[in-house]
Amino acid sequence: MTITITAFERSPDGGMGLARDTRVRWALEEVGQPYEVRLVSFRAMKEPAHLAVHPFGQIPTYEEDDLTLFETGAIVFHIAECHAGLLPDDANTRARAITWMFAAVNTVEPPILELVTAKILEGDKPWAKERMPLVADRVRDRMKQLAARLGNGDWLDGAFSAGDLMMVSVLLRVRPSGILDEFPNLAAYVARGEARPAYRRAFDAQLAVNTRPPIS
Amino acid sequence: MTITITAFERSPDGGMGLARDTRVRWALEEVGQPYEVRLVSFRAMKEPAHLAVHPFGQIPTYEEDDLTLFETGAIVFHIAECHAGLLPDDANTRARAITWMFAAVNTVEPPILELVTAKILEGDKPWAKERMPLVADRVRDRMKQLAARLGNGDWLDGAFSAGDLMMVSVLLRVRPSGILDEFPNLAAYVARGEARPAYRRAFDAQLAVNTRPPIS
Repeated sequence: MTITITAFERSPDGGMGLARDTRVRWALEEVGQPYEVRLVSFRAMKEPAHLAVHPFGQIPTYEEDDLTLFETGAIVFHIAECHAGLLPDDANTRARAITWMFAAVNTVEPPILELVTAKILEGDKPWAKERMPLVADRVRDRMKQLAARLGNGDWLDGAFSAGDLMMVSVLLRVRPSGILDEFPNLAAYVARGEARPAYRRAFDAQLAVNTRPPIS
Repeated sequence: MTITITAFERSPDGGMGLARDTRVRWALEEVGQPYEVRLVSFRAMKEPAHLAVHPFGQIPTYEEDDLTLFETGAIVFHIAECHAGLLPDDANTRARAITWMFAAVNTVEPPILELVTAKILEGDKPWAKERMPLVADRVRDRMKQLAARLGNGDWLDGAFSAGDLMMVSVLLRVRPSGILDEFPNLAAYVARGEARPAYRRAFDAQLAVNTRPPIS
């Protein structure tokens, strides 16, 4: 079985690990599966060959023998289902871990995406200065609720799971705004994620791609 | 096994079926599982008893014997995993159906949520008129890509699955803006979803809650 994922030829974040291939790399490292990476340029991402694999013209994608997947959450879930280490065996605990995967992408990430969009796509608009605090406060509302639930736990529901992998990855995207550090238990939670050897290997692998000299 | 879900005591949409309990009701109807509903007021949703079940103070939640879940996507997935009818048996086809579940909530829904937020929370702001077209165009970008992938298929990947259930539900939220009807194949796809007997039963059940006379 050969696993091939796609990643940005050059990530817009310059190697901060915020591009979504890092989530998939991390999952593969947690379960000890080797993988290959096919780098895709921004131009190629919008061309028919890539759109046939990823209808929304994004990265990452995942190919394994005759299976092709897109959408990070689904790829991480597939990896977690096929290999031990990311989902608990007990049925109820497993269902709750999957709940956190969906909560990460459907409840916590949307306001964070709005904050990123407000900066990147609307940062030069006349309303940017007045609107940004509103958007940031919507992120804070979610963070407060998440911080209350996490309390002083190490992970969201017992042992580390794919739910934590997704949630830590989503929270990493809010760190550049400074909002993560307003919630010390969430900042510590993210730091615990980053300290995992599998995360380090995933981070280093994407950093190597994004800091390699230009091919000329 | 008794299944109990929560729903709004009165949905903000007045019974249009856009509140997320409709997605869970629909899934339960597809697999033929009876369920009970506990209605929750806006005030009660933010109180400790409900926050213990749903850390983000929302609906729906799902209780089944000693299992408690929140987050619509995870609840629909749990129902699909436990009962036949919403996920195909073939492993690869199943993984692709799950991909569409995640694509619905993490790729297609976020710009739609932004559009809803722009109207509800920022409709009275000085930037609303100038900004709205930008937000609507971001929704259209995703819809174009989804329409291209769907083509003239009935469903996203062969037979109807939980991926279609989630995607149709997400697209229903964009219909009030008029944008759905700009994409005839997506509008027809949503209509196919709405025509399913299970959807009708789910819709009617939530409508009955939201049109009952006030208890005084």
